[in-house]
Amino acid sequence: MNANWRSCLLAGTAVVLSCGGAAANDELLKLQKDPNQWVMPTGDYANQRYSTLSQINKDNVKNLRPAWTFSTGVLRGHEGAPLVIGNVMYVHSPFPNNVYALDLNNNGQIIWKYEPKQDPNVIPVMCCDTVNRGVAFGDGKIILNQADTNVVALDAKTGKEVWKALNGDPKKGETMTSAPMVVKDKVIVGISGGEFGVPGHVTAYNLSDGKMAWRAMSVGPDDQIKVDPEKTTEMGKPIGKDSSLKTWQGDQWKTGGGTTWGWYSYDPQLNLIYYGTGNPSTWNPVQRPGDNKWSMTIFARDPDTGMAKWVYQMTPHDEWDYDGVNEMILADIPVRGQQTKALVHFDRNGFGYTLNRETGALLVAEKYDPSVNWATKVDMTTGRPEVVKQYSTHAGGEDKNTQNICPAALGTKDQQPAAFSPKTGHFYVPTNQVCMDYEPFKVSYTAGQPYVGATLSMYPPQGKNNLGNFIAWDAGTGKIVWSNAEPFSVWSGALATAGDIVFYGTLEGYLKAVDAATGKELYKFKTPSGIIGNVMTYVHNGKQQIAVLSGVGGWAGIGMAAGLTKETDGLGAVGAYKALSNYTQLGGVLTVFSLPD
Amino acid sequence: MNANWRSCLLAGTAVVLSCGGAAANDELLKLQKDPNQWVMPTGDYANQRYSTLSQINKDNVKNLRPAWTFSTGVLRGHEGAPLVIGNVMYVHSPFPNNVYALDLNNNGQIIWKYEPKQDPNVIPVMCCDTVNRGVAFGDGKIILNQADTNVVALDAKTGKEVWKALNGDPKKGETMTSAPMVVKDKVIVGISGGEFGVPGHVTAYNLSDGKMAWRAMSVGPDDQIKVDPEKTTEMGKPIGKDSSLKTWQGDQWKTGGGTTWGWYSYDPQLNLIYYGTGNPSTWNPVQRPGDNKWSMTIFARDPDTGMAKWVYQMTPHDEWDYDGVNEMILADIPVRGQQTKALVHFDRNGFGYTLNRETGALLVAEKYDPSVNWATKVDMTTGRPEVVKQYSTHAGGEDKNTQNICPAALGTKDQQPAAFSPKTGHFYVPTNQVCMDYEPFKVSYTAGQPYVGATLSMYPPQGKNNLGNFIAWDAGTGKIVWSNAEPFSVWSGALATAGDIVFYGTLEGYLKAVDAATGKELYKFKTPSGIIGNVMTYVHNGKQQIAVLSGVGGWAGIGMAAGLTKETDGLGAVGAYKALSNYTQLGGVLTVFSLPD
Repeated sequence: MNANWRSCLLAGTAVVLSCGGAAANDELLKLQKDPNQWVMPTGDYANQRYSTLSQINKDNVKNLRPAWTFSTGVLRGHEGAPLVIGNVMYVHSPFPNNVYALDLNNNGQIIWKYEPKQDPNVIPVMCCDTVNRGVAFGDGKIILNQADTNVVALDAKTGKEVWKALNGDPKKGETMTSAPMVVKDKVIVGISGGEFGVPGHVTAYNLSDGKMAWRAMSVGPDDQIKVDPEKTTEMGKPIGKDSSLKTWQGDQWKTGGGTTWGWYSYDPQLNLIYYGTGNPSTWNPVQRPGDNKWSMTIFARDPDTGMAKWVYQMTPHDEWDYDGVNEMILADIPVRGQQTKALVHFDRNGFGYTLNRETGALLVAEKYDPSVNWATKVDMTTGRPEVVKQYSTHAGGEDKNTQNICPAALGTKDQQPAAFSPKTGHFYVPTNQVCMDYEPFKVSYTAGQPYVGATLSMYPPQGKNNLGNFIAWDAGTGKIVWSNAEPFSVWSGALATAGDIVFYGTLEGYLKAVDAATGKELYKFKTPSGIIGNVMTYVHNGKQQIAVLSGVGGWAGIGMAAGLTKETDGLGAVGAYKALSNYTQLGGVLTVFSLPD
Repeated sequence: MNANWRSCLLAGTAVVLSCGGAAANDELLKLQKDPNQWVMPTGDYANQRYSTLSQINKDNVKNLRPAWTFSTGVLRGHEGAPLVIGNVMYVHSPFPNNVYALDLNNNGQIIWKYEPKQDPNVIPVMCCDTVNRGVAFGDGKIILNQADTNVVALDAKTGKEVWKALNGDPKKGETMTSAPMVVKDKVIVGISGGEFGVPGHVTAYNLSDGKMAWRAMSVGPDDQIKVDPEKTTEMGKPIGKDSSLKTWQGDQWKTGGGTTWGWYSYDPQLNLIYYGTGNPSTWNPVQRPGDNKWSMTIFARDPDTGMAKWVYQMTPHDEWDYDGVNEMILADIPVRGQQTKALVHFDRNGFGYTLNRETGALLVAEKYDPSVNWATKVDMTTGRPEVVKQYSTHAGGEDKNTQNICPAALGTKDQQPAAFSPKTGHFYVPTNQVCMDYEPFKVSYTAGQPYVGATLSMYPPQGKNNLGNFIAWDAGTGKIVWSNAEPFSVWSGALATAGDIVFYGTLEGYLKAVDAATGKELYKFKTPSGIIGNVMTYVHNGKQQIAVLSGVGGWAGIGMAAGLTKETDGLGAVGAYKALSNYTQLGGVLTVFSLPD
């Protein structure tokens, strides 16, 4: 079977045609180059979230207007973005993780829907809202990560279940929020639950039948974490034997966190997948001495075998919940003047990292928000941050409240993905501008119970009253190009286009378009609810469309989403974002925009 | 205090200014003549839902586009419409009946919100979704009818509670879904619960302090129903003593229904309010012999005293649940060639009635849907319908299934209000085209338990596959002018404007604009969810705006709203409307439209 999905699809009408068991890698590689479609949540394997479409551009974007809308029927936080394949759009919702196939030829009429029945007991073990970041497509299947850790493959034509794989156990606090990624003949998925002591892992399931192909843990023995002590490197050097185990006290690694709930990327030429691992558990650093490897780490792995080629730990012995899960954007750019196969990563810890994605060499590590104060800099030889003792939550010991740490636990950026424009060479980063007080306390592990061990309060940096910025970043030099202040964190994912514009959403609910070169605001529209979804684009009937989910929630909006009112609830977010409810209410609506005829 | 609210309001900026204890009648009379505002759910006292605005007209309406949107944070059916007073919009939601004051100068930012805590046990006693049809305004207050029968007056500036009056008891099945109406110094409210044996009443509360001024029952002794046996007339004749009591067996009137949950209207010159009463309880006609007066009746009452001037019972001894609650539209029109102070009423029973609103004289009674078959005609001398025995559910007796009765229980029209254009002279009526099988069964009364006593199935008329039409009607002759077929019932309220267009929403979620003269579709937009709200219009910053709530539900959408699946559930609606979930999902979003700059 010739694996040209695009031509298969174009042969169909409203409904996706099955083209048989094609090699998904070839299909997806081709499909993601077609700007008329949006075949993966990240836009492409490189996570660039860039479209070559320019029908909507900086001159005419002021005329943009909603073309049609669709309520998912679910409230709470709507992260992620729909897919468009042919004339069908696939829209997902937060728990209960409904999936709708919508007919683009008919204003989004429902072709099929998948409404899984899940045990609602999974909700209390989802730390930061009942979010889901979207579905993947490959080989005629739509792949869904359910909150209850069922990975489900649906027939893209009919919505019928093709296979199902159980990836974890919610009774242990294991849940799923991230989107799967299809690479070659496999589906790559992560796991959530860092606040419940869940040991992180990445798992590959066969795209054809859902059988597990491999699983690589984040922490633990070398065979479980799939490293070769001699060949797997960090900062250019072999990591050696028991690289993870020896950085933990006793058996603590078994509940050690390092969950894997961020976005994944893939370099087909290097045949490497990239992702980051989350915080070590518990959040009380006093309780778990050591570097806690490989939490807070960028992994580069072979998708066929799962073996790690290189690693880089950004925040050894995390004391602030600076999860390293944020996406890796792959781009070939000049770095310090030299053309480089770069990997660019905006970490929760407030540093923007540029690495050589082939070797894992650290090239740039600079603060992408001036308020970042927990570390002065990253030592470019060791790769370690130089921690400021005043802001070390470990240094004060348990039950000591360390104040004015910037950024807060939800980082200078969290899950909200950045975009890259090859046209401008800039990265466009939705950021948080939030600081915190952090008080660690002793906690003991019970499966399925919160294993947080810290009380937090969050607020803007001193002298500021805005909780976020949307910035353009030069990853070759580590400098902010421009920065737009936003009243709240920008918790939505960005989209850059060849129309010289960048789109993002705001927590108050605005979809905004700004000039890619200057950041000047060119358009805004108030969608029904706060936006924490990611902007995407496609073409239908010759017209470029822009789509985004609104539905306030996520960690920043957890107070509204879960109805919490105590300021330190929501792991400290409730207090910081309490004013949000003056701007928007809960929702769950897709808005599709285009230019007037 | 000079009671010119409009000038008071215009003196303010975003926030309504208090102008003291003015006479609300004068205020409202003036305010409702200002097309820039929309000060009552019905548009005006006459219930015409007509605007003299013409900036948006039949030539440019094709360019209409959403200007901003607002999610109410609540799912399920959103009936009613927001108010606009000055630069503030007041938006309500279904249970829990949140009210939001939105700043029109700032894309709907929330000025205040009122989020009542109500016992969720009221939900199961709401027969036909947890709807609410909107708030009223008068004397600086926003009046809300809560589901739990609390009538609440809020300070329009601050949202703070001014007074609260308890109008019923949900434990007896008494709930509130309708909008209050402010007349002079009183707030007029009804009661819901006809499916629970609730005896209907209309109650006037003092606008100033919430104290009850009068209450008029629908059924019962003369003093309770506030009639004068000599002066209150039907068909021009005094109704006589015990006009209600003698049409009931024994004490059945005490649980006799005749609830009052429709729209109210008012003629300031005649000083009469008009409203209709609902079905007699139970739905099993065999169980309650007699005419069951004054269920199914149009009442004309003095708003100062509550006394009835005239009555007209449309469906004596109801056998089909043809509630008479649908709105009375007051219009001065030629009837059979003679200029008339008319009252026009599109009844659930499928007849469009034109009466002299001063005398209650019946002038026209014609079918406004050709499928209506339960009666051949209305006898213009007696005012009684000529029932076709084949479709009498009483005639077959209990446990006999009578088939193919048209219309179904939800009528040729239900709560969805019609509009009238003085410019065309036509009435624009959102209709249902649904028939039913009806099987009465014996039921005994228990307070707070369903007292329905009939099993129903619903479906389109034979040979048809569409469940609704949107029609233009000549009330002077009783003829359909034009009729647009719609796939589902048109459960949304219409708006007619001087732009020669009529707006309405569809259950799939389209806001539509059609040519007032011909019905030709000029514009449609797919809102997030099915529309059962009413379209309204106002002006902001010199631009005409059109607004409508989407959020599928109501009786027609009860299957989706309440998650029911058995075909006869939802009093028969679930089966008829089951295809609706292929078009839309639950939502709760206000969409505001305007022309591009």
